[in-house]
Amino acid sequence: MKIAFLGPHASFTQLAATQLFPNEELMPQANILDCFNAVEKGEADKAVVPLENSIEGTVSMTLDYLYKTPSIKIEAEGVMPIAHHLMIHPENSVEDLEKIYSHPQALAQSFHFLDTQYKEITRQDFSSTAAAAKYVSENKDQKIAAVANQFAANLYGLKIVHRNIQDFEQNHTRFIVISKQQTPYHNENLEVLGEKSGMLVNLPEDHPGGLHQVLSVFAWRKMNLSKIESRTLKTGLGNYFFFINVVGKWEDVLHGNALLELQSIQAEVDFLGNYKEFLLES
Amino acid sequence: MKIAFLGPHASFTQLAATQLFPNEELMPQANILDCFNAVEKGEADKAVVPLENSIEGTVSMTLDYLYKTPSIKIEAEGVMPIAHHLMIHPENSVEDLEKIYSHPQALAQSFHFLDTQYKEITRQDFSSTAAAAKYVSENKDQKIAAVANQFAANLYGLKIVHRNIQDFEQNHTRFIVISKQQTPYHNENLEVLGEKSGMLVNLPEDHPGGLHQVLSVFAWRKMNLSKIESRTLKTGLGNYFFFINVVGKWEDVLHGNALLELQSIQAEVDFLGNYKEFLLES
Repeated sequence: MKIAFLGPHASFTQLAATQLFPNEELMPQANILDCFNAVEKGEADKAVVPLENSIEGTVSMTLDYLYKTPSIKIEAEGVMPIAHHLMIHPENSVEDLEKIYSHPQALAQSFHFLDTQYKEITRQDFSSTAAAAKYVSENKDQKIAAVANQFAANLYGLKIVHRNIQDFEQNHTRFIVISKQQTPYHNENLEVLGEKSGMLVNLPEDHPGGLHQVLSVFAWRKMNLSKIESRTLKTGLGNYFFFINVVGKWEDVLHGNALLELQSIQAEVDFLGNYKEFLLES
Repeated sequence: MKIAFLGPHASFTQLAATQLFPNEELMPQANILDCFNAVEKGEADKAVVPLENSIEGTVSMTLDYLYKTPSIKIEAEGVMPIAHHLMIHPENSVEDLEKIYSHPQALAQSFHFLDTQYKEITRQDFSSTAAAAKYVSENKDQKIAAVANQFAANLYGLKIVHRNIQDFEQNHTRFIVISKQQTPYHNENLEVLGEKSGMLVNLPEDHPGGLHQVLSVFAWRKMNLSKIESRTLKTGLGNYFFFINVVGKWEDVLHGNALLELQSIQAEVDFLGNYKEFLLES
């Protein structure tokens, strides 16, 4: 099987993809759109893209492309705690550091550590944490370090000098597995955190209380939402669709009736699937 | 007045900041956190940061920092249509192009144009559209182009060879002006698109229908929402806060009572302000 993912090599998304698909061929893509295109054209069977809180891409693009390509559904979700490490070339020392490279969001997420331990050291933006790690591995004559993940340290043979320098223990990145088949994803080696349904809901007219009406469908059935996000439609300002996650296992009567009730209030629903949430390592 | 903004120079956020604050001192920052820190420590009076759909940063960080720094409020919102242009060094020709540089999201947003007109040309990721434009301006011996905005073309003296190559006419980026004073922002030279209130709502317990209960407060008052987004709290999985925009002018009784009713159902509300939405040029 061919699995597209948001590259570059040693990105957090690759770290997710290798755990979700340890025995499949992984195909790095330059951006989120390319991941969707590869799946839609059949060049890849599935793709792994970030859904929430990633440092590697504007994740709103994932929601927009889910909306634009109704043939693509969700098979699984992976949740990865974010862990940033400070790493240097193995032959160098951390004492005479002059510059620290990383993606600007990774530098921001490690702000407290860098500001107390390396306050005077210049920080330099890179297009990705992996690219920063690669650059450090290729320039041992420079007194530089990278903020990147464990996978990048292994891949580029760097020495980790400070572990877990991120400001919050509980910062997570969410990834989804997308495909056209929507075959049930299963992996015995990963811990299952829960189960949920994903859907895109579009209200035909923007009127006060419209979203409230949609949420009533779930509320009186005691279906709990774990995520809701409004996105502007590309047709202009003031038109929206919503990405909604409903917690729990799929129940034919409960979920089926909820979808029917949504249609009865003229809401357009693209049901993205009922899928499991897996814990990934970082 | 000192205005911090999400840099680098010639970024879309700078384009927004120069229109919102044409006569003030602009201070570029490496990331969104630095913008918030500059305002909180008083190093800057205000800051301009992306709120939605930016290609320059994971905008969920803006919501997270609004939540983490309750002293910071919103004074204004700017809406900018996204316009990407293909630009080259003025002494070069577009005929023998070998590489096109830009931010990966800008390349994705111009996918249709690039894929039909420049299908065979290699696309190369850069950390920002502005950095790509700068690189093109400094390397006239190379047969390269950048996808960037008008401002970058002007700043780095590049020649635009194709205008408006983005896939959607109606793609917008939203920016907010943040400060600790919350002085009413006004600018006679910008068109006002509307008025809205922003707030962060935190539910003490995650229970089915909790969000529905919050939205009831707005629905029965016929207050229309233009944006809603859930964000995971840093305290662990499964705890959320919501960013909500309510359309319209502030009305003491209506809004005041809505906030009181939210408190009566144990929702914690951080009211971010009632502010105008301005149309920006790109």
